[in-house]
Amino acid sequence: MCRWLAYSGTPILLDTILYRPAHSLIDQSLHARLGVETTNGDGFGVGWYTPDPTPDTPAIVRDTGPAWSNRNLREIADHVRSPLFFAHIRASTGTAVQQTNCHPFRHGRWMWMHNGAITDFNRMRRDLALAVDPALFPHVEGSTDSEMMFYLALTYGLEQDPPGAVERMTGLVERTGHRHDVEFPLQMTVAVTDGQRLWAFRYSSQGASRSLYYSTRVETLRALHPDAAFLRDISDETRLVVSEPLGDLPGAWNEVPESSYGIVQQGADELLPFAPQAV
Amino acid sequence: MCRWLAYSGTPILLDTILYRPAHSLIDQSLHARLGVETTNGDGFGVGWYTPDPTPDTPAIVRDTGPAWSNRNLREIADHVRSPLFFAHIRASTGTAVQQTNCHPFRHGRWMWMHNGAITDFNRMRRDLALAVDPALFPHVEGSTDSEMMFYLALTYGLEQDPPGAVERMTGLVERTGHRHDVEFPLQMTVAVTDGQRLWAFRYSSQGASRSLYYSTRVETLRALHPDAAFLRDISDETRLVVSEPLGDLPGAWNEVPESSYGIVQQGADELLPFAPQAV
Amino acid sequence: MCRWLAYSGTPILLDTILYRPAHSLIDQSLHARLGVETTNGDGFGVGWYTPDPTPDTPAIVRDTGPAWSNRNLREIADHVRSPLFFAHIRASTGTAVQQTNCHPFRHGRWMWMHNGAITDFNRMRRDLALAVDPALFPHVEGSTDSEMMFYLALTYGLEQDPPGAVERMTGLVERTGHRHDVEFPLQMTVAVTDGQRLWAFRYSSQGASRSLYYSTRVETLRALHPDAAFLRDISDETRLVVSEPLGDLPGAWNEVPESSYGIVQQGADELLPFAPQAV
Amino acid sequence: MCRWLAYSGTPILLDTILYRPAHSLIDQSLHARLGVETTNGDGFGVGWYTPDPTPDTPAIVRDTGPAWSNRNLREIADHVRSPLFFAHIRASTGTAVQQTNCHPFRHGRWMWMHNGAITDFNRMRRDLALAVDPALFPHVEGSTDSEMMFYLALTYGLEQDPPGAVERMTGLVERTGHRHDVEFPLQMTVAVTDGQRLWAFRYSSQGASRSLYYSTRVETLRALHPDAAFLRDISDETRLVVSEPLGDLPGAWNEVPESSYGIVQQGADELLPFAPQAV
Repeated sequence: MCRWLAYSGTPILLDTILYRPAHSLIDQSLHARLGVETTNGDGFGVGWYTPDPTPDTPAIVRDTGPAWSNRNLREIADHVRSPLFFAHIRASTGTAVQQTNCHPFRHGRWMWMHNGAITDFNRMRRDLALAVDPALFPHVEGSTDSEMMFYLALTYGLEQDPPGAVERMTGLVERTGHRHDVEFPLQMTVAVTDGQRLWAFRYSSQGASRSLYYSTRVETLRALHPDAAFLRDISDETRLVVSEPLGDLPGAWNEVPESSYGIVQQGADELLPFAPQAV
Repeated sequence: MCRWLAYSGTPILLDTILYRPAHSLIDQSLHARLGVETTNGDGFGVGWYTPDPTPDTPAIVRDTGPAWSNRNLREIADHVRSPLFFAHIRASTGTAVQQTNCHPFRHGRWMWMHNGAITDFNRMRRDLALAVDPALFPHVEGSTDSEMMFYLALTYGLEQDPPGAVERMTGLVERTGHRHDVEFPLQMTVAVTDGQRLWAFRYSSQGASRSLYYSTRVETLRALHPDAAFLRDISDETRLVVSEPLGDLPGAWNEVPESSYGIVQQGADELLPFAPQAV
Repeated sequence: MCRWLAYSGTPILLDTILYRPAHSLIDQSLHARLGVETTNGDGFGVGWYTPDPTPDTPAIVRDTGPAWSNRNLREIADHVRSPLFFAHIRASTGTAVQQTNCHPFRHGRWMWMHNGAITDFNRMRRDLALAVDPALFPHVEGSTDSEMMFYLALTYGLEQDPPGAVERMTGLVERTGHRHDVEFPLQMTVAVTDGQRLWAFRYSSQGASRSLYYSTRVETLRALHPDAAFLRDISDETRLVVSEPLGDLPGAWNEVPESSYGIVQQGADELLPFAPQAV
Repeated sequence: MCRWLAYSGTPILLDTILYRPAHSLIDQSLHARLGVETTNGDGFGVGWYTPDPTPDTPAIVRDTGPAWSNRNLREIADHVRSPLFFAHIRASTGTAVQQTNCHPFRHGRWMWMHNGAITDFNRMRRDLALAVDPALFPHVEGSTDSEMMFYLALTYGLEQDPPGAVERMTGLVERTGHRHDVEFPLQMTVAVTDGQRLWAFRYSSQGASRSLYYSTRVETLRALHPDAAFLRDISDETRLVVSEPLGDLPGAWNEVPESSYGIVQQGADELLPFAPQAV
């Protein structure tokens, strides 16, 4: 499968989150603890919004080799600051190792990344492709289930109602899977953003979803760890959502419950239940 | 566009055809004379059958960089002998530069490569994808028009009747194009083989097809050039089909006529007219 | 050979210079007009300083494929702003196509890029390697003449006296070449910067150096082209040095004379004679 | 570190050894059991001699990504037969991930591959480079300790006396290391061949060398496992030398003792003591 992280908050060098933590995403590319595979070496991607108002699209840099040895990722992490970024390391479940299959995916201002799989995707691929809005169909570039899920969510109104669109996408995947005699069609943690708000979903047909964690409120963490210099430099609004905790700071990480999703946004963040919707 | 060559005959080192001729395919990757672009640096591929009876599938080695600097291609060419091989250099018309978009494509024992384009492919892509046999649909790995043409030809019976299947594929592409108000939907030279016979097609909706040449019969060439040592080492059955002549040997190259196709096979080769068929 | 450009001035999106001009560096990667080869497809690099005070080292992103199809370069150009950046496209003269052979090269805050060659470099390589400061020797990562020239210049005091160090490096290369019976050992245009000032050199042993141009003073250009909106958005201090003019704006480009170098800096820029120094 | 295997015997498809065994080299690229790291994803290489008399040089195909997802390696393994081949998967100890740093290395008819490291190589690199025969110096393409060891062995007569040359190379590395206050300068298992004979060395300054195994004589294995079909298809002369056993067949694998080397050749193979020689 894969591992990912999403950051929203005070603009920081990507390095601070990508490389410096003890169990950083780069460390996870070689030694994931909570994933299905320990190695995530089949490509990576990083997508970031700039602190400037323009462009309002994210930059997305993706490559096919392992993240751990990629020098360009190291350079970008050392020199790019961003208030909102995604990073993803891939362990292919069979589809080709190529740039167009690396996360995050982008459509306009929107970014999407996924950990998990559509079970027996190849049996459903045609049916799902047909459900994509014909106007969006030519934008599908790669061959992954993850990108297909993104375009299905866009088809179902992601830009207007992200949680509803993801629930409808999930409903379609499950119905299609059941029609093909797939018992548990979907396994997913998904992050999606428009550059302002960030939605993170944890769901699986089987009710045994891949791990997903969010960071504790910065104010609470400061009270717990008054000596942690890092916490003084970031705003109260700063939040991380990650496949695996990046370290062992007590009280820092909270599991996203099964079948739920969170919204990271200006003001209070939210944690809400998630259920597939019929389409 | 692209450039390609197909060789059938006495087993030889790939190097003999790929690198040694004055205007070899590798030279064409930097300095094509008859193509739309002089540079063909967006990936390459070589596919070869072994002289051994097993495996009966071709080996296909493809990569995304330019052929001219690829060391692995050089190594393979210097050390692999084959009685039947394809080579292709790509100039992308917009689709991603990735291994799954490099030619030749393979399905079982069959190989396919293409120079040209489906005009406004993105507008037709969904309609054409729907016409692919659902059982074959999951095998489409890349995003090119060329691979889609291959799977459409397979859908229309390539393995039983190659010329008929290509004519039906062409008919479908043209009908689909016209429905989308594309005046001249198709431009193609195509080579396809099952490891025994080789079919080469030249056709375009506009009647102004990309260049395609076949080599003169070896017996005739020997009479013309009694001193050419190379000609003494190859059998009478040896034949090349190429996008551009590989050199200036007088009498060596003949243009494939517009709207026609050739069959290279044991015994006499054939040159026949080609016309799209309604499907 | 290669093509390069160096920009210093108002922080701008890299795209403005890398992709937008009619004869941009990306266009030159396929269609160089003044180079030895029209194609520069053997790797590329871009190095930029951030507008922030930290880090004070440049970011360097390099890859081995052609620039024209590289999506990550496109992403970076669309989203990164810089007051001082280098870009380089490579046409290998024989050394391996690999990231460590791509320009620019970096040492601490310093960046270096080169167009040209040391003639018969392989015959001189050992002698030149021995002249590199032993403390710097392990930092040489690739196998190019260009990187060796950089480390020789560092050995001869680049960080204290850039023009003098380049003159001494040139002197050494010529003396070494002559000892190996190479008549014209060096051909170069070089750009080097510490993030504050930028030095650009044009020299060849034969007195027939590769092309090099610098942009006219912005004030002068504004007077010549009062309608050019672009010129109103950039400061008077903005300057470009390029292997080939990026377009046809009359009066915009001036050839750097043979055997000379320029300094782009706060206040008046300078143009001075260059001559190899004995070491 | 790395993992490697060397095969000599009945010409077979590379696939038989590279992919089919339960704990094949490809499996070891993700799940090495006896190595310092479980992941060997920083490039790979395969070098093979053809069954034909010409060319007598080996083909060497190397690439920078992980072996486990490389499709070209899969294609070659499925279609190339060889009587003598090397395969290597790399875990970089710091030097760049690039083709010229991948094993095996070649010089004329000779191939070399290595697992291990020169301790503090960067401190010794210049001294060792100076000891390389100046005529060979320009052939060093990459930046690894492994390639340097190969060129030092060539300098010390590898082509005339392989064991002696490797002993002298080892002596030089140890003396140089001690001069730089490195207590245990060398750790190595090395395979080298001229296409006829194969030498495999196991040595480390500390006397705690990386694992190395050779396969039991085929006749003995046949007696032990009369039902193993694979053993009936290979000649008595067939032998494997590997970093790790490829499976659990009882009696199949024997550890190469500390400080020793083996010769695989026509007729009886040999196992002999190894000791560094002063130079």
